[in-house]
Amino acid sequence: MTDNKALDVVLAYYRAWTGGDLDTAMTYIADDVVCDAPAGRLTGAEAYRAFMAPFAGMLKSAELIGAFGDDERAVIVYDTTTTLVESGPAAECVTVRDGRITHNRFIFDRLPFQQARAATQ
Amino acid sequence: MTDNKALDVVLAYYRAWTGGDLDTAMTYIADDVVCDAPAGRLTGAEAYRAFMAPFAGMLKSAELIGAFGDDERAVIVYDTTTTLVESGPAAECVTVRDGRITHNRFIFDRLPFQQARAATQ
Repeated sequence: MTDNKALDVVLAYYRAWTGGDLDTAMTYIADDVVCDAPAGRLTGAEAYRAFMAPFAGMLKSAELIGAFGDDERAVIVYDTTTTLVESGPAAECVTVRDGRITHNRFIFDRLPFQQARAATQ
Repeated sequence: MTDNKALDVVLAYYRAWTGGDLDTAMTYIADDVVCDAPAGRLTGAEAYRAFMAPFAGMLKSAELIGAFGDDERAVIVYDTTTTLVESGPAAECVTVRDGRITHNRFIFDRLPFQQARAATQ
């Protein structure tokens, strides 16, 4: 692994957070990261961690479906099983600079999560 | 373009349907395509077209964000503006055989579309 390759970085980040180690995952996130998430734009590592922590906390398992990239940009596609939703696939399309993710377009379907939350309330 | 490269095929399919030509887009879809869409699994080109047609019909513009792949598999990430939703990003992770898409993991957030439909009812 070389830390200037976007795919290596996003895979290391993915393996860390899906392995329950959000601290290590955050070492691959730039301090001034910009994340375009389904609910809107997040700016900064603190906001990014606050976005990821609830999802990581309810993760039961994750399966990598696809991973492609070059030195600067990469996409990972994976499925997740959480305590809320049996299958919640997601895609992260990232830009990497100096070994850290500076931008992430994060795509997943919020609907089943909203429905599951509504059902438990 | 060589028709055995997954990325070329998915880009040709993407350019056709986002350009308003669903007929041409469907020439890149295998008759026995399997599509894992947010609402569940679709099987066969007819079901695939029925899934895509309403979305293509309300498309105002699309912007490609990322496109990566190899000979057999590819991922495209793009944003869409439709008559319903100002920004509806999506990812398609495809498998290609003999120049046609045989499997597509199609990821987008259904929530803003559901909310927009509810608001107009």
